[in-house]
Amino acid sequence: MKDYAKLWLAYSPKKNNRECGDLKKIYISGVSENDKIVKNAVAELKAGLKAMLDIEPSIEYGSAGPDIKIQNGKDMQDKEEYTISIKDSGLEIAAKSGAGILYGAFDILRTVACEESVEKAYAAGKTVRPSNPLRMLNHWDNMDGSIERGYSGESFFYENNEIVIDERTKDYARLIAAVGINAIVINNVNVKQAASYMITDRYFDKLAQLGEILAGYGIGLYMSLNYASTIEIGGLDSADPLDEKVIEWWKVKMAEVFKKIPTLKGFLVKADSEGRPGPFTYGRTQADGANMLADIVKDYDAIIIWRCFVYNCKQDWRDRKTDRARAGYDNFIPMDGDYHDNVILQIKNGPMDFQIREPISPLFGGLKKTNQMLEVQIAQEYTGHQIDVCYLIPEFKEILGFKTYCSEKDDTVADIISGKTLGSRFSGIAAVTNTGNDFNWTGNYLAGANLYGFGRLAFDTDLSAEQIAEEFVRMTISENEEVVSAVLEILLPSREIYERYTSPLGIGWMVTPATHYGCSVDGYEYDRWGTYHRADHLGIGVDRTDKGTGYALLYNEPNASMYNSPDDCPDELVLFFHHLPYTHVLHSGKTVIQHIYDTHFEGYAQARELAAKWDSLKGKIDDAIFDNVKERFERQLYNAREWCDQVNSYFYRKSGIPDEKGREIW
Amino acid sequence: MKDYAKLWLAYSPKKNNRECGDLKKIYISGVSENDKIVKNAVAELKAGLKAMLDIEPSIEYGSAGPDIKIQNGKDMQDKEEYTISIKDSGLEIAAKSGAGILYGAFDILRTVACEESVEKAYAAGKTVRPSNPLRMLNHWDNMDGSIERGYSGESFFYENNEIVIDERTKDYARLIAAVGINAIVINNVNVKQAASYMITDRYFDKLAQLGEILAGYGIGLYMSLNYASTIEIGGLDSADPLDEKVIEWWKVKMAEVFKKIPTLKGFLVKADSEGRPGPFTYGRTQADGANMLADIVKDYDAIIIWRCFVYNCKQDWRDRKTDRARAGYDNFIPMDGDYHDNVILQIKNGPMDFQIREPISPLFGGLKKTNQMLEVQIAQEYTGHQIDVCYLIPEFKEILGFKTYCSEKDDTVADIISGKTLGSRFSGIAAVTNTGNDFNWTGNYLAGANLYGFGRLAFDTDLSAEQIAEEFVRMTISENEEVVSAVLEILLPSREIYERYTSPLGIGWMVTPATHYGCSVDGYEYDRWGTYHRADHLGIGVDRTDKGTGYALLYNEPNASMYNSPDDCPDELVLFFHHLPYTHVLHSGKTVIQHIYDTHFEGYAQARELAAKWDSLKGKIDDAIFDNVKERFERQLYNAREWCDQVNSYFYRKSGIPDEKGREIW
Repeated sequence: MKDYAKLWLAYSPKKNNRECGDLKKIYISGVSENDKIVKNAVAELKAGLKAMLDIEPSIEYGSAGPDIKIQNGKDMQDKEEYTISIKDSGLEIAAKSGAGILYGAFDILRTVACEESVEKAYAAGKTVRPSNPLRMLNHWDNMDGSIERGYSGESFFYENNEIVIDERTKDYARLIAAVGINAIVINNVNVKQAASYMITDRYFDKLAQLGEILAGYGIGLYMSLNYASTIEIGGLDSADPLDEKVIEWWKVKMAEVFKKIPTLKGFLVKADSEGRPGPFTYGRTQADGANMLADIVKDYDAIIIWRCFVYNCKQDWRDRKTDRARAGYDNFIPMDGDYHDNVILQIKNGPMDFQIREPISPLFGGLKKTNQMLEVQIAQEYTGHQIDVCYLIPEFKEILGFKTYCSEKDDTVADIISGKTLGSRFSGIAAVTNTGNDFNWTGNYLAGANLYGFGRLAFDTDLSAEQIAEEFVRMTISENEEVVSAVLEILLPSREIYERYTSPLGIGWMVTPATHYGCSVDGYEYDRWGTYHRADHLGIGVDRTDKGTGYALLYNEPNASMYNSPDDCPDELVLFFHHLPYTHVLHSGKTVIQHIYDTHFEGYAQARELAAKWDSLKGKIDDAIFDNVKERFERQLYNAREWCDQVNSYFYRKSGIPDEKGREIW
Repeated sequence: MKDYAKLWLAYSPKKNNRECGDLKKIYISGVSENDKIVKNAVAELKAGLKAMLDIEPSIEYGSAGPDIKIQNGKDMQDKEEYTISIKDSGLEIAAKSGAGILYGAFDILRTVACEESVEKAYAAGKTVRPSNPLRMLNHWDNMDGSIERGYSGESFFYENNEIVIDERTKDYARLIAAVGINAIVINNVNVKQAASYMITDRYFDKLAQLGEILAGYGIGLYMSLNYASTIEIGGLDSADPLDEKVIEWWKVKMAEVFKKIPTLKGFLVKADSEGRPGPFTYGRTQADGANMLADIVKDYDAIIIWRCFVYNCKQDWRDRKTDRARAGYDNFIPMDGDYHDNVILQIKNGPMDFQIREPISPLFGGLKKTNQMLEVQIAQEYTGHQIDVCYLIPEFKEILGFKTYCSEKDDTVADIISGKTLGSRFSGIAAVTNTGNDFNWTGNYLAGANLYGFGRLAFDTDLSAEQIAEEFVRMTISENEEVVSAVLEILLPSREIYERYTSPLGIGWMVTPATHYGCSVDGYEYDRWGTYHRADHLGIGVDRTDKGTGYALLYNEPNASMYNSPDDCPDELVLFFHHLPYTHVLHSGKTVIQHIYDTHFEGYAQARELAAKWDSLKGKIDDAIFDNVKERFERQLYNAREWCDQVNSYFYRKSGIPDEKGREIW
């Protein structure tokens, strides 16, 4: 086991917050003191308060509620709700489940850690109900220890095809529970090699043990499932979801799996995607595949999360009719209403992939009768590999706040995935996670803000990106006001800066193929992945209007009309929807080509400013953190310069239109 | 050991050639019958004639010469010369060494195998003296079994960091001796990991054994050397060639190595190149490094072959002054005359790398006082990965025939490397080889023509590409005249066809980075490798004239003036030397842009014709060979179409100039 940082559980000594009778008494109400999660919550509170304030609170259990089994479903939010109020000379946490108590405990610890006033925080009573039933991390960890799209070392779950359980496992559970995560998928969605055997005897014991640890922190255990298990490990010759032999095999298998891993909550499935097998192979629908599995796992109160990332990854680049952005919609809308109650469709956003800027998937607002989950990516696959700083919470806020116009009210993405819009029983948000066994967990220390922030935002969608970032800085770097300001000035604009020096106006994809780090303007232009910019000497962009692929019309009005019109389409997405001449004038008053030049020069200059700001923190923060981020900034600046110069040179060489400001283009 | 084809040693039954007293007697003169190579030659003759003609010749030994130790150097060609003449009712092979006899024996076997008339072939007496002292194959095999730039399976020399010696080892020696190869370097020039330990006890026994087998076929054993061995395995802190400790270490090491591997003939060294360490690290010259080693190995009659592939592989693409094509010249010309007598500079051709079309390295004709070897590549790194058929002998003929104007006569590359021009003691030609443990040795069966052809051409530079190809077809595929014609019609134009559908007018490099297979027009344009096309909306090409990098002036006149002028420069190299507008009119009368369109459409169409021609052979040749090449052709056509459409689309999109013939461009 490699050593590791404690991040927001470091609990360093604090000077403030000694009101409320010095927090000497804490009342816990509504739950049994024998609940395992309650015990962990109490242990956390005691350890944290001792370390931060040198207080050893006595715990009093109030009206004990029933021992509630935490399960997925519509009641989950109720059960995870908590209330904190001042009682006598202490605080009371009241909840309907151990998880609620645990979140309350972490709320108090966070308040103390951030040196906020406990008095102010809880004087009026604070009730928090998680915004989303499922708040999930997807690990793309492989059992050989590698991590697909991992930029923080190797997996801490697997080594040499074995499951590793050690001190770090528990601390990981604590870390993510502290920010409100209540579900993790512990293996790569591309289930191959040893991972196909996770549903066999070979791994049951360790999985049961892991599930127990996670359950103690209110975290549900999920696994990615190999849809073709019947063939690959079952010895059948089919994976047809309507084949009785296939169904029977799964019934027997699931009975075994849930018996051996009692804490298991369900499965994530990537089928018919990028070479993975699926129901399409047998002429069946995605609903056929998902429902078959869902019906079987229903007996165990478990769910099937079905990814919507299904598209033709062997597109001919000459073909301008096929549109990868449409694929999720076209593949999943026709079956809306057919998915059974314990199926959730997990919808990647954006509709193409995790580019720095894409429109919102039109499945949100399109699906009217189906449980939905939003999938984002905090692993910085396309956003800088945790080399470049890119605080993603502002982007997630945009996604969540997007009005889909699917109903008269409660029509945002946040509304939909919270379950509010459609009255969904199962819904929520998942992030492809960014952790590994690096000392600091996330490669770039500042990438920890995305792990922290995703959890916090998933738990409370109303939190601002600024508040989340500030909590992260105060809890993990410093509470010195100068440091806090400087780091916030680095984090908050970082996503827009990254966007500026990379791909302009929503076009995306100008990345080095395969690795997805660094610039290659034509890298995917003549390839099979459906990811094109269609630039020629006159213009650039993909026509997704009614005259093109028709993608814009997949949105509800007025979004459809807005995106369909180059005049109404927001600048930042205009090349996603339109093929425009370089001389087209944007809302900003600039031409497309001048926008490209300006944003790239600006983005690179701003990246240098961020690096300089970080340099100013030398000696004011922990040296190890300083050095880690400084080394990353050096690589970021190299990357940003390459992007700036390559993109500008490419478009200058192609268009022949000089920069108005006469800056150096190659 | 995987099974393998016998290729040109298959010795299938023949009907002809039963003149000369049915070859019942063979006289061997000038050598001792106890010579190991002579014994192998006799065994080869007996086996071959038995298999092909059902003859069991009696052997008579004529005037036995001295047991000649074959060694490198100026006498080698004399020693390898042979004469075959008709004597009594049989043939006489006369030579001054066992190797000469062996080559004579293979000459007879080839004549029989090709169903030529032995009578005609030898009636007038046939004397052949090899054109080049060293005729070498460079294996880029790694000890883990992988092969750098290998497209024919894994190494048959190494498995799991051990040296493998089995039946195939000997048959490999027979195969390459049969075409005249007299030297092989058995490990990758990038000496890493286990290969660094080849000069230690760990491998001596096997290497000695391997050397013995090779020596029995007149083949000298060479190894690639890790220049930094003093550091990596010697425990010193330096590899400075002038450091006494370093020199002393090498002296001791070499004494050990040559004692343990008595057949060892020398070393190949890649230093100061692509991340490999070298003398530059210590402020020394390449000559300092080479001479230090050469002086030490001289005591063992061995040589040092020093690669000239030294360039800045971290070039900034914005930098238009640095020119990778110049690097070999600039790095090695200043020391001309400083290299000791047993050093050979191995000069990669072209000056950039192994592109499908480059000018000849100006080191040939530039170096006046230095032993030189030409390095070509039959591994099809940039020429189709042994998927696309690309018969390279016509290219090698061009290189060899190039007049350098370094002297009034004997000024071609062939003259220089033969030793004629400069009276070199050591010189010759090396090919990075294309073999692996595939059944047919070379991936695509037709790529065997390059292995066969390289050896034949190295041995006899005057052979035509046509004759060599015909021998290959007759010996390994069929002697049916229809088949011979068809396969020749595939092989002979294949290099020009490959050139047509790939990179135009000598520009090269429009390949997928790293793999080097498939099109990526901008793949290297913004990268650090010094390999650019500099295309913009007006034109394309690299200015290497006196107004550009000055590279053209590195040639002797009149070549310098010819290359320096866009009007005089041959079309096929014009973009290597000049940046020209797309509207520039070539000697062909076509504009540059129309040439690009025309050659690409033609090249793809011609590739389809080649494939169709191959299809016509179904049932007329061995099914396994047919199927192997057919499957490759399917991939070649996909590749050729991609190249055609991507290059045309790229330049149409960039220039905006339509194809005169209105063909489909995307």
